[in-house]
Amino acid sequence: MSMDVTFLGTGSAYPSPCRGASAVVFRTEGECWLFDCGEGTQTQFMKSQLRAGRITKIFITHLHGDHMFGLPGFLCTVSLQCSSTVTKQPVDIYGPVGLRDFVWRSLEISHSQLAFPYVVHELVPSEDQCPAEEFKDWSRTGIGDERIPADIQGRTVCEDPEGGSYTLFENDQFTVKAFKLFHRIPSFGFVIHEQERLGKLDVKKLRDFGIQPGPVCGKLKLGASVTLDNGQIVSPSDVLGDPIPGRKVCILGDCSGVISAEAARLCHEADVLVHEATLDDTQMDKAKEHGHSTPKMAAEFAGLCRARKLVLTHFSQRYKPAGMVGDGDEDVSVLKIQAEHHLVGRDVVLAEDFLTINIPIKKTD
Amino acid sequence: MSMDVTFLGTGSAYPSPCRGASAVVFRTEGECWLFDCGEGTQTQFMKSQLRAGRITKIFITHLHGDHMFGLPGFLCTVSLQCSSTVTKQPVDIYGPVGLRDFVWRSLEISHSQLAFPYVVHELVPSEDQCPAEEFKDWSRTGIGDERIPADIQGRTVCEDPEGGSYTLFENDQFTVKAFKLFHRIPSFGFVIHEQERLGKLDVKKLRDFGIQPGPVCGKLKLGASVTLDNGQIVSPSDVLGDPIPGRKVCILGDCSGVISAEAARLCHEADVLVHEATLDDTQMDKAKEHGHSTPKMAAEFAGLCRARKLVLTHFSQRYKPAGMVGDGDEDVSVLKIQAEHHLVGRDVVLAEDFLTINIPIKKTD
Ligand SMILES: [Zn+2]
Ligand SMILES: [Zn+2]
Ligand SMILES: [Zn+2]
Ligand SMILES: [Zn+2]
Repeated sequence: MSMDVTFLGTGSAYPSPCRGASAVVFRTEGECWLFDCGEGTQTQFMKSQLRAGRITKIFITHLHGDHMFGLPGFLCTVSLQCSSTVTKQPVDIYGPVGLRDFVWRSLEISHSQLAFPYVVHELVPSEDQCPAEEFKDWSRTGIGDERIPADIQGRTVCEDPEGGSYTLFENDQFTVKAFKLFHRIPSFGFVIHEQERLGKLDVKKLRDFGIQPGPVCGKLKLGASVTLDNGQIVSPSDVLGDPIPGRKVCILGDCSGVISAEAARLCHEADVLVHEATLDDTQMDKAKEHGHSTPKMAAEFAGLCRARKLVLTHFSQRYKPAGMVGDGDEDVSVLKIQAEHHLVGRDVVLAEDFLTINIPIKKTD
Repeated sequence: MSMDVTFLGTGSAYPSPCRGASAVVFRTEGECWLFDCGEGTQTQFMKSQLRAGRITKIFITHLHGDHMFGLPGFLCTVSLQCSSTVTKQPVDIYGPVGLRDFVWRSLEISHSQLAFPYVVHELVPSEDQCPAEEFKDWSRTGIGDERIPADIQGRTVCEDPEGGSYTLFENDQFTVKAFKLFHRIPSFGFVIHEQERLGKLDVKKLRDFGIQPGPVCGKLKLGASVTLDNGQIVSPSDVLGDPIPGRKVCILGDCSGVISAEAARLCHEADVLVHEATLDDTQMDKAKEHGHSTPKMAAEFAGLCRARKLVLTHFSQRYKPAGMVGDGDEDVSVLKIQAEHHLVGRDVVLAEDFLTINIPIKKTD
């Protein structure tokens, strides 16, 4: 099953002609999810090979404008593109408390009538996620009974009892959890973990049981036990190879660090870890002051997680993509060199707008 | 004094790579005003020769997303670009009731702290500006005492007592008024009228009074009366030629028509009349149903006003600019032909992104 991640915006603070504001698309067969939706994300979709109308879930890491000011317009445009004959399933939106209010008010004031419903599930942040003076309790400014027709009541997602993670949902294919980050305002990271899948049929073991290719094999492959003609019961684990581990993709919002050790456990051996690196290592004090990271900080977290691939993004607009470096501009490649210096032997990639990264199926050892 | 109008977005409904969402900049020495601010306007500024930080006033024709979803991000980015040492004057924002709520809530939820204050002056629409079922009384959902520090209380602008116009402001250089349009939701047109200026000194008349070039001429030129050595009092009108009429620029929001005859009077002999033409004349029923105009409708209003130049904009994204017409695309030039058909002998221009139109000083006859 194919799986990839495409960057539609890799710039910090605001969109520019060189780098769109934050937006990442995760794609696998049948699913297409958007992570953050800065201003202009809908136009970035149009410039890409992806189709905005296929998005079924949206995740917002935090409420800074460069991560969500594109959301009302994105929903309106997807709605315009909807064929009126096809009923589009509700779009699930996950993000910090306050997001629902922003979405419905923006749609309400602009008289936007969506052709499909949406559901905002709000994550409850905690005070340790930002400087004390920046923390606001949005739950007090709830939207009360005011609604627009498209707005379906979602869940309020609290931290799991054991602490350190928020379970957003779990289905046959994936478990998606969030974890807390430290930033100027509460920010979250998201972990998409594919479910482990049954191993392949082991031809030698089948032969030992005297099982011929046919319907019996099919049943075993699907995970059901069978009773052979001789009365012997064969369970799938008797004839299947090692299970195929699920792939893991982690997408972190703006941060100068994580809140709990649970974050590294959730991101353990991530196939792709997307981490911000707003400024280069020589600007680390300034980065931290603004709740941001540098390549060294991103690399250290990736090292702690033993991530297989670290992807840096959310670059200050001062760092131009390789092809666009003019006189007096800074080249973004310095950030790659800095990260590699602290993550020896692992893969470091610089995100750029419209870059797609494939995540191949894991091999069993 | 130079005066021009630049289009930063000429597309209807949503921004696309071919056409940005609505945004027009009016410029004259010392003034730079933005009319509408669809999503992506800040990026269009960066692609243009204009500087977003120079904008001192913003006018929003109506509250549809394609005309204002770019406003919060625009303000945030201008704020980031502000030098912290220069105190930026408050930015005046004019638009329908409800706009202030949208701006402050978007800034509040995103924890945006602007480096300059802004003042929203809200125009009170009336029920005749849209279909009855679309009219909402936003004044009831006022923001009460909730504020962010940058938000300064503005005026509530009601229709002038004589009816048909709203006076937004008047200074030495300009009078700016608004008038009502019919659309899916209440929409407005804006008229920028330059003040009439004193004529030039008439050399022959000066000679008749025996006035020599020098300080006396200077006083008369500035509009002051002088007493000559022989006791004779000379007033400026005695020696100045005809006054130079002020230029007039009219920028209309989305509409399928105006509400009162006063609109044509306000726009009388406009040097530039910017009018939407969302669909071509073969789609007139559909255009009207959605509260929009076609070239014929725009041309008829321009003819009524005796406008000197009609500029069409807000094109459905189906009409591609001349250079971007691919197989199966519709060419926007058909809209120009249709308008010219109904406005014989007058100038019709199709707006396109980054087009600038100069408005020369008027000549006295
Ligand atoms: Zn950011
Ligand atoms: Zn941020
Ligand atoms: Zn519009
Ligand atoms: Zn409209």
